[in-house]
Amino acid sequence: MTGWLEAIDRLARERAKAGLTRQLRPRAAGDSVVDLAGNDYLGLSVHPDVVAAARDALDAYGLGATGSRLVRGTTEAHADLESALAGWLGADSALVFSSGYLANLAVVRAVGAVCDLVVSDAYNHASLIDGCKISGIPVKKAPHNDPAAVETMLRDHPGRAAVITESVFSVDGDLAPLAELHEVTSAHGALLIVDDAHALGLLGIEGAGGVAAAGLAGATDVLVTATLSKALGGAGGVVAGPAAFIRHLVDTGRTFIYDTAPPPAVVAGVLAAVRVARAADDRRAELARRGARIAERLREAGFDVRDPAAGVLSVPAPGPEAAVAWAADCRDRGVAVGCFRPPSTPDGSSRLRLTLNAGVTEADFANALKVIVECAP
Amino acid sequence: MTGWLEAIDRLARERAKAGLTRQLRPRAAGDSVVDLAGNDYLGLSVHPDVVAAARDALDAYGLGATGSRLVRGTTEAHADLESALAGWLGADSALVFSSGYLANLAVVRAVGAVCDLVVSDAYNHASLIDGCKISGIPVKKAPHNDPAAVETMLRDHPGRAAVITESVFSVDGDLAPLAELHEVTSAHGALLIVDDAHALGLLGIEGAGGVAAAGLAGATDVLVTATLSKALGGAGGVVAGPAAFIRHLVDTGRTFIYDTAPPPAVVAGVLAAVRVARAADDRRAELARRGARIAERLREAGFDVRDPAAGVLSVPAPGPEAAVAWAADCRDRGVAVGCFRPPSTPDGSSRLRLTLNAGVTEADFANALKVIVECAP
Repeated sequence: MTGWLEAIDRLARERAKAGLTRQLRPRAAGDSVVDLAGNDYLGLSVHPDVVAAARDALDAYGLGATGSRLVRGTTEAHADLESALAGWLGADSALVFSSGYLANLAVVRAVGAVCDLVVSDAYNHASLIDGCKISGIPVKKAPHNDPAAVETMLRDHPGRAAVITESVFSVDGDLAPLAELHEVTSAHGALLIVDDAHALGLLGIEGAGGVAAAGLAGATDVLVTATLSKALGGAGGVVAGPAAFIRHLVDTGRTFIYDTAPPPAVVAGVLAAVRVARAADDRRAELARRGARIAERLREAGFDVRDPAAGVLSVPAPGPEAAVAWAADCRDRGVAVGCFRPPSTPDGSSRLRLTLNAGVTEADFANALKVIVECAP
Repeated sequence: MTGWLEAIDRLARERAKAGLTRQLRPRAAGDSVVDLAGNDYLGLSVHPDVVAAARDALDAYGLGATGSRLVRGTTEAHADLESALAGWLGADSALVFSSGYLANLAVVRAVGAVCDLVVSDAYNHASLIDGCKISGIPVKKAPHNDPAAVETMLRDHPGRAAVITESVFSVDGDLAPLAELHEVTSAHGALLIVDDAHALGLLGIEGAGGVAAAGLAGATDVLVTATLSKALGGAGGVVAGPAAFIRHLVDTGRTFIYDTAPPPAVVAGVLAAVRVARAADDRRAELARRGARIAERLREAGFDVRDPAAGVLSVPAPGPEAAVAWAADCRDRGVAVGCFRPPSTPDGSSRLRLTLNAGVTEADFANALKVIVECAP
């Protein structure tokens, strides 16, 4: 039977014509590329404490967790990390998943037990959108960062709703008005779910995240999710919130129950990263300086760029081909930058996404800034 | 606002009353529990080659992959593993995900581009059921392991369908009639998607899995998924199939594109595990001997137990309380066994699930067998 592969090939040709073909580019260990594209904001993926903790757990436990969390997968390393994350985020309790994607699927589905409407920011991440879809809860898309529009939706709704937003948005790097959103949700008895993936480690006292920075840590009507793969330099995801909600996830969360636990070595490495991240005010200050500097330099070059709220800068490009060429020229000169085109951009425009990384040396950063400006269209 | 937490608490009390509360039990490194509950079938999670390869990659790359596969996450370790998996499974191409759950979500959604019906075995894993749900494709549930019923569904359907099954089912350990199913799917121009999670490393020449054992490796109308967290002792998932389909996943698979890549150390450890697994005929033979032995012993004790098709044995218990007590008694005597009750069992019955593990010593295995029989209700 070849019919289906011909249909798949036809779709590939359509994507190629629309410039939507994606390419995997394997990198070597220790390549000399300057990374302004990844999410290792604090440079912790290669921090000696993180690597040493992962190595020790690898020696102690072996590689895999060997089973789901409820069967054989939970180790003392998992329990220790969950305590540390709850403490850091100021939450009752926390639960670790093998991916942030799976954490987001779990939390949205779980609130379906007590909510009959989800109000989801128009720019939310794919995992949150999929969480809405898989939850089966009716969904209303809210205009981006618009608490007044959210309030209208809640006011018109007789039941209990959950409002979902990122704290720092992954493509544009802008900050959600969390305090305003929480005023609205609490006034209407709604829950607020915040994906803190791009703010954890970067915002708030000791880097406790966007929710903490907005004064909402420990609020009993706020649920926080985050990845362990960005500022923490590891892999996996977490949901933090009231203990009763976390117990609900343990008992009913399909992406928790039916998934192999994350490897003890990864979990132990992330625990070490939490300790480093809490004390990393110097790295956070350096990121803020670099963010302001790169935004200023790009504004001087004529681009409409805002100072980043955390570690993500969005730089508008004249069009999709120009964005691709800009990123390719940077790559040819040893600088990795993100390139986002429709349909991966929420507003249909094309842009570079630059991410800050405290692990990049000052000299490399200065050179990368020069390269980005010189390659600009 | 406490209303929602009261509602969550009420649900918890209902679960407690129904005996459906789940408990996390963290294990220490090197605990002395004999593991007949996990999925480390070949004992590779602690194999020295696996641990050494993971350690080397940890030193070379650091802990996390620092980005999604298409941004900064793909390393040479990822590319090497994908080549090795494709070669082992006899497929054109393979793509690695950070979890088997995410791999299954991706493959089902992707076939939605060319199929307008999914026929899903009634006993399929939660991740496949969720994949059906998230795909938006109309789904028909087929009676368990019933190619004739599948044929009727396909005959009645004018468009292109995809039939989804596990090769070795995760709870009962029984084998799907893959060759018969493929005869049916190919006669009707349908695709066959097989989750080989519990057969990879165990069945087929060099452990290439249930699809290979059924003579279907490389068939252009068969898609294979598997986890890297069971016989391979690591973490993550894989989809293998025609190169055009894998390219389709790279370009469009949301759980691939919008997820951080699995850690290079995990990926490198799994690559070492593939090499060990291919040569592990001795471990596979030992598992087959143990499976037959444990089944025979339990039949002598009056239980209706079949010889396992791979590494999973299902042992009926008189009821949910008896199953829980049986597993608890085993645990108290140092033997971990799985305990499955409704609603986690596909047919509503309660049972123990025993899994074989070549890493368990002969003495520990013999003692565990004794304990299981002595604790029997």
